[in-house]
Amino acid sequence: MTLEEFRAAAYAVVDWLAAYRESVEERPVLSRVEPGEISALLPAAAPEEGEPFADLMADLDRVVMPGTTHWQSPNWFAYFPANSSPPSILAEMVSAGLGLQGMLWSTSPVVTELESRVLDWLVDLMGLPQAWKSAGPGGGVIQMSASDATHAALVTARAAKSGAGRAEDMAVYVSEEAHSSIEKGCNIAGVGHCRMIEVDEERSMSVAALEAAVKGDLARGLLPVAVVSTVGTTGTTAVDPLTEISRTARRRGMWHHVDAAYAGTAMICEEFRDFQPSLEMVDSYTFNPHKWMMVSFDCNVLWVADRAPLLEVMSILPPYLRDEASESGAVIDYRDWHVPLGRRFRALKLWWVIRWYGAAGLRSMVREHHRLARRLADRVGRDDRLKLFAPVPFGLVCFTHRDGNEATRRLARDLNATGKAAITASSIAGEDFIRVAVGQAETEERHVDALWDLIDSLA
Amino acid sequence: MTLEEFRAAAYAVVDWLAAYRESVEERPVLSRVEPGEISALLPAAAPEEGEPFADLMADLDRVVMPGTTHWQSPNWFAYFPANSSPPSILAEMVSAGLGLQGMLWSTSPVVTELESRVLDWLVDLMGLPQAWKSAGPGGGVIQMSASDATHAALVTARAAKSGAGRAEDMAVYVSEEAHSSIEKGCNIAGVGHCRMIEVDEERSMSVAALEAAVKGDLARGLLPVAVVSTVGTTGTTAVDPLTEISRTARRRGMWHHVDAAYAGTAMICEEFRDFQPSLEMVDSYTFNPHKWMMVSFDCNVLWVADRAPLLEVMSILPPYLRDEASESGAVIDYRDWHVPLGRRFRALKLWWVIRWYGAAGLRSMVREHHRLARRLADRVGRDDRLKLFAPVPFGLVCFTHRDGNEATRRLARDLNATGKAAITASSIAGEDFIRVAVGQAETEERHVDALWDLIDSLA
Repeated sequence: MTLEEFRAAAYAVVDWLAAYRESVEERPVLSRVEPGEISALLPAAAPEEGEPFADLMADLDRVVMPGTTHWQSPNWFAYFPANSSPPSILAEMVSAGLGLQGMLWSTSPVVTELESRVLDWLVDLMGLPQAWKSAGPGGGVIQMSASDATHAALVTARAAKSGAGRAEDMAVYVSEEAHSSIEKGCNIAGVGHCRMIEVDEERSMSVAALEAAVKGDLARGLLPVAVVSTVGTTGTTAVDPLTEISRTARRRGMWHHVDAAYAGTAMICEEFRDFQPSLEMVDSYTFNPHKWMMVSFDCNVLWVADRAPLLEVMSILPPYLRDEASESGAVIDYRDWHVPLGRRFRALKLWWVIRWYGAAGLRSMVREHHRLARRLADRVGRDDRLKLFAPVPFGLVCFTHRDGNEATRRLARDLNATGKAAITASSIAGEDFIRVAVGQAETEERHVDALWDLIDSLA
Repeated sequence: MTLEEFRAAAYAVVDWLAAYRESVEERPVLSRVEPGEISALLPAAAPEEGEPFADLMADLDRVVMPGTTHWQSPNWFAYFPANSSPPSILAEMVSAGLGLQGMLWSTSPVVTELESRVLDWLVDLMGLPQAWKSAGPGGGVIQMSASDATHAALVTARAAKSGAGRAEDMAVYVSEEAHSSIEKGCNIAGVGHCRMIEVDEERSMSVAALEAAVKGDLARGLLPVAVVSTVGTTGTTAVDPLTEISRTARRRGMWHHVDAAYAGTAMICEEFRDFQPSLEMVDSYTFNPHKWMMVSFDCNVLWVADRAPLLEVMSILPPYLRDEASESGAVIDYRDWHVPLGRRFRALKLWWVIRWYGAAGLRSMVREHHRLARRLADRVGRDDRLKLFAPVPFGLVCFTHRDGNEATRRLARDLNATGKAAITASSIAGEDFIRVAVGQAETEERHVDALWDLIDSLA
């Protein structure tokens, strides 16, 4: 493909994307294809000869669109948002065009130094401990997902205790409302026991139950190695009591990891920071700019208070990766901070999103989503047919139908079937409920009001 | 950012990228900044108010370019290539613009079904076992990097044997020339022993030494769980004897994983397939389309002959991820195939690259790079000052200076200092050598000839 062909093709892609984003609001949010329907549109074998670019473009409408569930629709209220945004898309274009690989500082210094700097910016923006900055004993690193970050934290906790016992005898503690990635991370890390600690009436981890579980395990001869707190659970955005959990963690010599995958973004607004006190006592913290912060998937951040134990387990130095700059100790080589060796240039989109919107712009978005979520929650709360299922500390509204599980499930199904909005049905302790995550970057008051009208007419 | 602003900004990015790619050949390949130089160009804090897009663009030249090492230069001969290509860049633009998240089939069916289909295409293109297709007992999945894929394979092997012993007593076998990701993967997976097996004069794993190591470990009461073979080692692209290693693996009940991260791409040409016989006896196989196949980083493929044990360790089903389609068993949910939950739409770039170039186009590229590597190797071989350090089965040429390590290291340093090409210095068993990887997508005969002239003048 010549440069002129590339330029023409790229303009065509840009036009197609602009038209897509203009039309996305009108599209049925959830894809309506049946299993196998997209496969049936695809040939069984790769083409022997190259095809014209126009055919590739045409298949965006013929093949891709029918199989697309529109995460970037302003009518997206399902799961949590996975927001992209124009500056983030533009940065991804640049990143793809440059094709850099930042495994070592020297393999493109800007990939590393920009990452360190932008993550330092976030420490200040989110009111995190100064010791987490790159000049301190800790530091931040971009990972692919919160699952990867949590897995890395669990592996580090396990390795740090390897002198005291075997992985199969180790135990990790997490609330029964925590994300599945923690149990999954334990399984993958080979940690023998992942204890689901009961929650109180606000679905926050019970510290008394945590203490009891740790004591019980110690009595059994097991080795408590880590506790994972959540700020904003996936089910209902419940928040665990960080201060008390940190105290228990310190007393028992456990690693304390905080999963703020979704709610972390809210911390750029001071009024939310009471939800995460005493961070100077935690060992690691993760959040996803690719959820609520308008930075395209994938962009997860993991901070550690002390980078030494993480690097101890993640670092290997073969001869073909030896490097003057690395050996001088004057630079960071982020390959030593996670499972993969190679790294995409992902700091660029974080940089561009923060610069385009400014701290003030990001805060406005969070506050507006919070306001809209409260507005919807008020309506739900006043309705005789519906009942709020949880408080609304951030942007998630959870509710049930008063007629019970079947009515709740039917309402969820009917809502999604309209194509006019997407929500998620979930369940806790046998009670089904509907999750409405107000947080898509383009969602405005009119979208939330339209959702309410739908709920009102279908309930 | 309005749609019109986005369109204008995106055109500007496209123009900048086209100009970049036009100029990349002339740029000094390696970045020349000192540690901290890029950081010094960046403000200490995030901006409070948003900045104009023109300022972001201007910083591509002011900040990004000085800190860039040009992996997409045709004068890139360092490490292995991490090729992008115009159709891959275009697909990444689309993927970023759509902002899909394919954790479940239902969260965008095209992300899953296109991935399965394109990986099935690759099974045929590369002559891999039919059982690895998505309709068989196995299947393929896109992961971020070969390190992730190998880690997943090792975790699966460990978990499959968890009934027979503890991870700390397990052993994994790998040649001393294998990639560092295997030892790193063992550490992360908590496997107690990673045995480096000696190599023969061609730097292929010695099967006799493997047998002896396994026997020794069994006698010690340890549990052999996996052997990792390499097709194309990072040092010199040596190839392990797969058939014999598979036989040992089967006899000892070990998982056999094949790391063909770099050389896998060559297998689209039939004449290279003798390097990987008997694949129907291996349990998993990984290669990186993001190395030599012109698919932008990140795009790694992991195939497993039987997906059941992988899913057994990677799958967790919480209520908020329950889903009708998933529960029907009619669809694949790739979140159950790796550590992360969320997934980018990466199949699109694989699809577009294969369609744009066609199988024939991809084969031509591999064959041309191989020819150019042999051409360079011939010249090195005929030179009195230099000596080939290894055979050239694919696109990597390894050589030393006959005057010894110091002369070799000086030649490497001098070459890189010219800015006209980038190569990698490495070392095996105390002998320093120079690696020249001919495989950048834009590299032509004239670039390899210019590299030879440089070597000739500096040697």
